[in-house]
This record gives sequence, structure tokens and C-alpha cells, in this order.
Amino acid sequence: MKSKGTRAERELLHLFWENDWAAMRAAGSGSTSRPSPDLLASKNNKTYAIECKSIKSERHHFKKEELEQLKLFSNLFGATAIIGIRFDNLGWHFLKAEELIPNKNGNYSVSLKLAQEEGIKFQELIDKYKQVRL
Amino acid sequence: MKSKGTRAERELLHLFWENDWAAMRAAGSGSTSRPSPDLLASKNNKTYAIECKSIKSERHHFKKEELEQLKLFSNLFGATAIIGIRFDNLGWHFLKAEELIPNKNGNYSVSLKLAQEEGIKFQELIDKYKQVRL
Repeated sequence: MKSKGTRAERELLHLFWENDWAAMRAAGSGSTSRPSPDLLASKNNKTYAIECKSIKSERHHFKKEELEQLKLFSNLFGATAIIGIRFDNLGWHFLKAEELIPNKNGNYSVSLKLAQEEGIKFQELIDKYKQVRL
Repeated sequence: MKSKGTRAERELLHLFWENDWAAMRAAGSGSTSRPSPDLLASKNNKTYAIECKSIKSERHHFKKEELEQLKLFSNLFGATAIIGIRFDNLGWHFLKAEELIPNKNGNYSVSLKLAQEEGIKFQELIDKYKQVRL
């Protein structure tokens, strides 16, 4: 049985392909010490490096190092660093990592409220509809 | 113990990172039906989607479908489709998938001789030295 995280990554992978984007999931982390997003997706010179989380609660904490690694990879690769959070029953919300504001410890807290107010949905991410923020 | 293929992919992953390229290995194939290269590497708007093989013999056969999937992914993602073959004791050789000529069955045969004559080495791939063909 696959973990909830893996299922969510695969769901997102298929969403991209169904919309004619190319997407690739990363090999399991832990196997190397190199930075890696969970998913890379690209089309028409637009490339997203995405860190995925699928949660039941209404808030997730990202560690400082986690987002630093995502930004490092993205800058080098030439991708936009994206946080993709899937809230149970409410689906995917996407936030640009560069726009997240760290708390006093340097870590990041992303709530459902923040995701709904500041984030965008999948259709906006892939530009089918008006893209508000990215 | 990791397979020879996995070890080779990781070796190549580290080669890219040691040369300040961002690279990511794909999650194991078989998990989805979506096309996926073994490795994606990028820097300065140059992106390679690489199918890796590590072989003891002096020839490897690529199936028609394997290269079609690599090209499909690459075209959509905006990457150059690359075949990376590591010959025991002779290291990595890289060939552009689009330049390989199929045999009468539509499959592809890559020999050490072809790789040495038509392929490039890692340093050429990443542009440190004069890049001859890619």
C-alpha cells in the first residue's frame, strides 16, 4: 500500500498529463543528499518544481531547510518553486515558495486560510484560466 | 543492494551536481504509465531528459517504444532527449535521441563504436569544453 503522500503526488502527476503537461515524480528522497522537489512539470517554457503535501488538518509546517532546498533546486534548474498542498475534501492549492513569509524560527506555516486567500487552484496553475499570482 | 542501473543513474546525478547543474532522478518506472526519462538535468535554459544504460557489453538495443516515450516527454517538457550509455571501464557517452537511426524493425542499436564516433562525453554535454554535436 502506497503512502498518502505518494498517492497525492501521483494524482497531481496525472492531472498534469491529462492537461498536456509533461510531469515527472522524483525518486524517493533519502537516496541521495541532493536537493529534489517531489514533482517537476513543464510546458511551453514554464517549469514548476513542486513540493507536495497531502494533509487532513488545516495547517502544515514546512521547515526552513525544506524550502531552502526547494528554492536552491529551482533556481539552478530554472523552475518556479511551488508548494502544492492538498487538503482532504478541498483539493489542491498552490503557493509560490518565494512569496511565503517565514515565522520567527525561519520555518513556514501554511494554513487552509492562507492557501485559500493567497494560493491558486490547479486550473490557474496551468494557465487554463486567468492566472492571478504566479 | 542497488541495481547497476540505479548506481549508474546516481553517479550521473552526482556528476551534474558537482558541476553546478540541477538534476533529478525519476521515481521507479512501472509505477505509472506516463512517459519518464531516468534523469532530468538543467542549467541556464539547457535541459536534458536522459535515458540511462550501464552495460558490460559493447552494444545495447533500445526498443522503438522506449525512444518514442523519451522523445514524447522531451518535446512536451521542452528538453533535449539524450541517450546516456555507460560502458564498463570506458565511462559515459551521450547521444542525441533524435539523431539515432532506427533499424528495419524501428528499434535502435547503439554500439561502443557508434558512441565513440558520434557521441560526446560528459564534459562536452555540460559545455565545459567545445560542444561538438548537441
